[in-house]
Amino acid sequence: MGVLGLGRMGAALAGALLGAGHDVSVWNRSPLKAGPLLDRGARLAATPSEAAAADVVISCLSTYESQQPVLDAASLRGRTLVNLTSGTPEQARGAAKWAASEGVDYVDGVIMAVPQGIGTPGARILYSGSETAFAARRDVLEVLGEPVFLGEDAGMAALYDLALLGMMWSAMGGYLHALALVGSEGVTPAEFTPMALDWLSSVGGFLAGIGAQVASGDYETDVSALDINAAGLAMLVETSRAQGIGTEVPATLRALFDRAVAAGHGAHAIASVIEEIR
Amino acid sequence: MGVLGLGRMGAALAGALLGAGHDVSVWNRSPLKAGPLLDRGARLAATPSEAAAADVVISCLSTYESQQPVLDAASLRGRTLVNLTSGTPEQARGAAKWAASEGVDYVDGVIMAVPQGIGTPGARILYSGSETAFAARRDVLEVLGEPVFLGEDAGMAALYDLALLGMMWSAMGGYLHALALVGSEGVTPAEFTPMALDWLSSVGGFLAGIGAQVASGDYETDVSALDINAAGLAMLVETSRAQGIGTEVPATLRALFDRAVAAGHGAHAIASVIEEIR
Repeated sequence: MGVLGLGRMGAALAGALLGAGHDVSVWNRSPLKAGPLLDRGARLAATPSEAAAADVVISCLSTYESQQPVLDAASLRGRTLVNLTSGTPEQARGAAKWAASEGVDYVDGVIMAVPQGIGTPGARILYSGSETAFAARRDVLEVLGEPVFLGEDAGMAALYDLALLGMMWSAMGGYLHALALVGSEGVTPAEFTPMALDWLSSVGGFLAGIGAQVASGDYETDVSALDINAAGLAMLVETSRAQGIGTEVPATLRALFDRAVAAGHGAHAIASVIEEIR
Repeated sequence: MGVLGLGRMGAALAGALLGAGHDVSVWNRSPLKAGPLLDRGARLAATPSEAAAADVVISCLSTYESQQPVLDAASLRGRTLVNLTSGTPEQARGAAKWAASEGVDYVDGVIMAVPQGIGTPGARILYSGSETAFAARRDVLEVLGEPVFLGEDAGMAALYDLALLGMMWSAMGGYLHALALVGSEGVTPAEFTPMALDWLSSVGGFLAGIGAQVASGDYETDVSALDINAAGLAMLVETSRAQGIGTEVPATLRALFDRAVAAGHGAHAIASVIEEIR
């Protein structure tokens, strides 16, 4: 295997491959970062094309902009490129097009785990692009995390990635706002968090119901109407202001919910808010 | 027991009390809503003060504004008022002050469950206010859901409520945005949601770490730096725009993360964003 890029994530990927007994060549702009991997048996490639002597090359650079010159230098014709550099669906599709023109089998991937999770059972990696190449080297990909294939559109993994990360950032934003709010009355994260985590798992249960309503377009509810939730968001914004903390996280949701109420969804379920997003 | 207000939640509360064998008087502005409860043995109170003949009176009206005239009419002196009407901490403290001036024992409560969950093991109800009154009637409160007492500051239950609901609205906003994003490429909620729920439970695991960092003020990270996440949010906003969906949910978080990066937290953990909220 060749690994291009030894940031936290690239180093974790190379480490997992070494741990599974693979022969691994690593390249990084600054070769100093390779040290711990060389101690574990990796070979240091002096150039990207040296690392690309392997049949499977994993690229994990910081951006597509920094990646392209590396790929250009790597002479990947006839190889399988597994591109784990983070980007947009458009960037992934552009890379797939470039790979096709260069005679490179292309699999795009996104890692739904932190570097410390690579190679552990909880790590999931989403792939899209060449199903043939994915299936042929699934054995290698399984070393890194549970591989899930999302289809031949190379942009699909990046689309899922951004959608899932967006859920994470929203959940984190909501949690940080909550910590700031209860913190304004002296409640510590240690006091608040166990209840917050219990509650978040209940909320997970609500989401499945919301998804089903979005799918059906039937927004009837006997649980909780949007107008009550919009009123609650108004109270949250008002209370945040009264407690002297920022309001932007709830204020944005309030504006969105209010718009859905104004569009006639007040007696509908919260799921109806999607009409104001899509 | 007396129950004032028979909206979805009030009716569920009265139903749970009846189910546990309590003697229940119910009052609602429109007595028609009492029908199903009368069939189950509730007594219809013609006025709020008739319902307040009981030693414990539960109030669950739509707003504090609509509640106050009902409480004024109820002659609650010497009774315990359990106020489950949704409001802000300031409104709860105001009600506690009013109760003290009227010789009423006051317990404020917020229900972290949907009406259908009342009386089931998963339902949690948070209380604050008179600890003596809470402890004395804990047996009744346990019929409604798992009671948690948060202290003598009557506003504390409402503060927790808004903080926890804010987490819910943020998580729902993030999920609806994600559904709109993957939906723009034809991915259905049924395809996306199982992965989204798995992922959300991983995110729950990250939150505990964020809480610990907020508590310590130590934002060092070897997992994921804020600047990478801010760049990811920029990609999410850009991709949302390219897919023709709304951008406000991620755009607000992006602005918040960017501000924290500009304040010098780029190499810090996501937890450092709280410095821009509180």
